[in-house]
Amino acid sequence: MLSVHSILVMGSNGGIGLKLVWQLAGESNGPECVFATCWAPEGPQAHVKVVVCKKGIALEAAGILLSSQETGDNIKMLNARSVLVTGSNRGIGLELVRQLVGQSKKPEWIFATCRDPKGPRAQDLKNLADKHQSVKIIPMDTNDPSSVKAAAAQVTEKLQGAGLNLLINNAGIVKPGCLESETAEDMSEVYKTNVIGPMIVSQAFLPLLRKASQESPQKGMSCSKAAIVNMSSEAGSITNLLVFDLGHVLGYRCSKAALNMLTRCQSRGWAKDEILCIALHPGIVKTDMIQVDQGQAPLTVDDSVQAMLKTLGHLSEKDSGTFLNWEGETLPW
Amino acid sequence: MLSVHSILVMGSNGGIGLKLVWQLAGESNGPECVFATCWAPEGPQAHVKVVVCKKGIALEAAGILLSSQETGDNIKMLNARSVLVTGSNRGIGLELVRQLVGQSKKPEWIFATCRDPKGPRAQDLKNLADKHQSVKIIPMDTNDPSSVKAAAAQVTEKLQGAGLNLLINNAGIVKPGCLESETAEDMSEVYKTNVIGPMIVSQAFLPLLRKASQESPQKGMSCSKAAIVNMSSEAGSITNLLVFDLGHVLGYRCSKAALNMLTRCQSRGWAKDEILCIALHPGIVKTDMIQVDQGQAPLTVDDSVQAMLKTLGHLSEKDSGTFLNWEGETLPW
Repeated sequence: MLSVHSILVMGSNGGIGLKLVWQLAGESNGPECVFATCWAPEGPQAHVKVVVCKKGIALEAAGILLSSQETGDNIKMLNARSVLVTGSNRGIGLELVRQLVGQSKKPEWIFATCRDPKGPRAQDLKNLADKHQSVKIIPMDTNDPSSVKAAAAQVTEKLQGAGLNLLINNAGIVKPGCLESETAEDMSEVYKTNVIGPMIVSQAFLPLLRKASQESPQKGMSCSKAAIVNMSSEAGSITNLLVFDLGHVLGYRCSKAALNMLTRCQSRGWAKDEILCIALHPGIVKTDMIQVDQGQAPLTVDDSVQAMLKTLGHLSEKDSGTFLNWEGETLPW
Repeated sequence: MLSVHSILVMGSNGGIGLKLVWQLAGESNGPECVFATCWAPEGPQAHVKVVVCKKGIALEAAGILLSSQETGDNIKMLNARSVLVTGSNRGIGLELVRQLVGQSKKPEWIFATCRDPKGPRAQDLKNLADKHQSVKIIPMDTNDPSSVKAAAAQVTEKLQGAGLNLLINNAGIVKPGCLESETAEDMSEVYKTNVIGPMIVSQAFLPLLRKASQESPQKGMSCSKAAIVNMSSEAGSITNLLVFDLGHVLGYRCSKAALNMLTRCQSRGWAKDEILCIALHPGIVKTDMIQVDQGQAPLTVDDSVQAMLKTLGHLSEKDSGTFLNWEGETLPW
């Protein structure tokens, strides 16, 4: 038997790490103290697993201490000089801007776009921009090609010759609709915003992404160099059909499957430009958009965005063209 | 060593069958005669593999004889009393009607729908309907919900209380468009025809499909009982991206990925009704729609449809919700 006084297990919120903690804590002659570290002990991933854990053993009695310890690997951060986030006036988009501006290595330019920056629904974003000079609010209706072109021209001007490192196609909509009730109009509208929007935005900002890639001294691909992140959803995984029996959102599912296809095509077509392209599932996050009860929306916007930004910091060319969740786990198409 | 004079290998055009033939024929003390049978020795699947085979060995010298031998299993035929095919005035749709009417157990009703049955592009279909009473031409614009409803009412009337066994959503369009040049208008139009059309057609004919399912004495699922076949394409496989470097059809790819999602949702949602739903890739077939040279379109419409009808005859509940090619092989999403 292993006989030590104390053990520290890193990455203990899931997988082998969690099993190690569980078994060590459950042994009669086990260590007096098991330090179970993970990146976000208060986060949903750790929480869910600790609940499971509690069924088997009394955590405190076993001397398990949860602590948040950054490992060398985890410190690898997103380091983009310029980032653009669409649909940034609320929900995940707004939180992305908020956390980007709060990073130790924060981008020099954060272009926060939304349809109507002067409207009441953009007040939080305006407050944020007032406090942080790096946040530039740009009006852009991703459904309107001429508005997208105008926004690209404005961003090009502000960048003063520099490229755009990271484009986050975050703007999206969802409309309820099941197999029998979904309408042609809603299907069309959801596709327009969730697929055609990201397509024309990517086209318009491609010259700036290419410039960033060409001018970067970095080899390979990264989100700090040149990347397109398309905000997708596991509800659009044809294989997994996340929450099929609860989420009657046929048009949304079809649009996200199509967005995943767009992402794969972008990754193949723009590989020669060393532009990294991924589809990202933020989790089922508590926002205005998602009307589900607590049990189905276990992630806060804060936790989701924190995990996603960490994931983006770690990506390289091997990830381009894949479908990842907020924690960087690969999802099937 | 196995020492026999002659061997017959069935299903020898691919997989284990082909390997068996290859190894048997290559042995110095192998059988004098290897009968390699497969369902369509002149078909593209056999052809490609035999070419590969020829590289290694001299087929004739080794005594390999290719013969088309129908096995008991292969005789299992589609046996639907009623079938509806959309976009049936040309290409795959027209050939489906032609071959259905030529089957030994032919359907009692073959509803052949197209947008403009009175127009010059429907002449071949009209000629076919003149010769065969079972072929009923029904006008239906799958892009127009009211036209779809009117068609469903007409079909309901003609069926005189019977249900519809098999709905083949075949109507589709393709428009050229690469990553950088694809337009919002074309994306929208292609989605409307290739995804929204099949969705509203399926909704409109659902009562007739349910009726067919309920009234069938058969257990389980089959295309002869109640089924929706959505004509998809391997170009819409996010995993495979068939002919990515040749087929610059971004909107088409996105629409087919979305159609695959629709198919999966239909299979899940309508499983309780025992309606079999699949996405089917007809191969790259020589039609007006596909502008590729010979090398990229090795299948004739005739071969593709022959294989697809055979495949449909073999399907059961285990296939519902899958993505198959014309020969019944599973494709990844």
